[in-house]
Amino acid sequence: MKKKVITISRAFGSGGRTIGKAVAERLNIPYYDKELVDRVAEESGFHADFIEEAGEYAPVTNSFLFNIAVSPNPMAMMNTMSMADQLFVCQTNVIRKLADEGPCVIIGRCADYILKDREDCLHVFIHADMEHRAARIVEKYGHTKQTPQKRLTDKDNKRRVYYRHYTNRNWGEAQNYHVSLNSGLVGIDKCVDFIVDLAHIYEEED
Amino acid sequence: MKKKVITISRAFGSGGRTIGKAVAERLNIPYYDKELVDRVAEESGFHADFIEEAGEYAPVTNSFLFNIAVSPNPMAMMNTMSMADQLFVCQTNVIRKLADEGPCVIIGRCADYILKDREDCLHVFIHADMEHRAARIVEKYGHTKQTPQKRLTDKDNKRRVYYRHYTNRNWGEAQNYHVSLNSGLVGIDKCVDFIVDLAHIYEEED
Repeated sequence: MKKKVITISRAFGSGGRTIGKAVAERLNIPYYDKELVDRVAEESGFHADFIEEAGEYAPVTNSFLFNIAVSPNPMAMMNTMSMADQLFVCQTNVIRKLADEGPCVIIGRCADYILKDREDCLHVFIHADMEHRAARIVEKYGHTKQTPQKRLTDKDNKRRVYYRHYTNRNWGEAQNYHVSLNSGLVGIDKCVDFIVDLAHIYEEED
Repeated sequence: MKKKVITISRAFGSGGRTIGKAVAERLNIPYYDKELVDRVAEESGFHADFIEEAGEYAPVTNSFLFNIAVSPNPMAMMNTMSMADQLFVCQTNVIRKLADEGPCVIIGRCADYILKDREDCLHVFIHADMEHRAARIVEKYGHTKQTPQKRLTDKDNKRRVYYRHYTNRNWGEAQNYHVSLNSGLVGIDKCVDFIVDLAHIYEEED
């Protein structure tokens, strides 16, 4: 079976988005990142800025949310839930719909976990050394009051807590992904080549 | 800089040894696994069977051992240490010597951590789904009273505890390796090709 849906989880500043976009272009399939935010905004009525921030870094309060998200009638439970939790439920539903619609690349948002039981997915984690990531965020987003190291550590921590809360798994644990790559060492282009190559695994069986 | 020393950490039954051996053959460099055990036996006087069992799965009792292992005169502290701890110190020294001697492939034994500050190392983690690993250990070692799943879970747990104890890091955390691969999905041959390819990274700079 060809790996039709590629999820890319990534440490901030590791180039995961760039890699995901390039993979989608090479395979000529849709790429969902900001596009996913728009879709969630459409379905939920939440503002895009809120979705972007709270969709991966929410301050979290409740547990076992995923069980609600996958229940047959999640909407019935939504009125007792926090906004962050409601967003997670909506985001989960959108991610599942996108995967059902056909081949695509999905960036972040626990998609690796949400789609873990589908056999047609390739789950990728991109990371890099602090040094490479710091250089990348300064180049991409410029300097701020905080050091790049502090910005990276804060984002990592928020993402780790968010992921742990909604999935009960540890963020960045190699066994949750088919492939994890240090983009600083491997290089962006080689990451793209390898993922594209793996996306064709089992193609002959189709 | 060419990546001269390749460490391969692996989940039991994931084919990490087979991959490591093939990589060493393709690169025409030494491969240290049982060979490392012999070397440690020679230097420590411990029996090879003890080294093989306690060198990756020891029941552990003390903390901060690595600090002793890397102290300038570890031998002076050895008489207060458990046998497992003495073995770890000796194994650490042997792994550092092997890396100093030249290019090689080293399997397991916290080599990724012991050599983490060397820039000429490529650190790889090989894992696979339970299903693939179970099939592999039955094919390789036959059936036992325990189910393959139980054998795998026990080995994973012992290795996780051992690694955590001696390194203070989490076993199988993607960010500790340059590359982590699910050999069940990627396939043994493609894992070998990719690692060999990465070993040549920066070669042109040498």
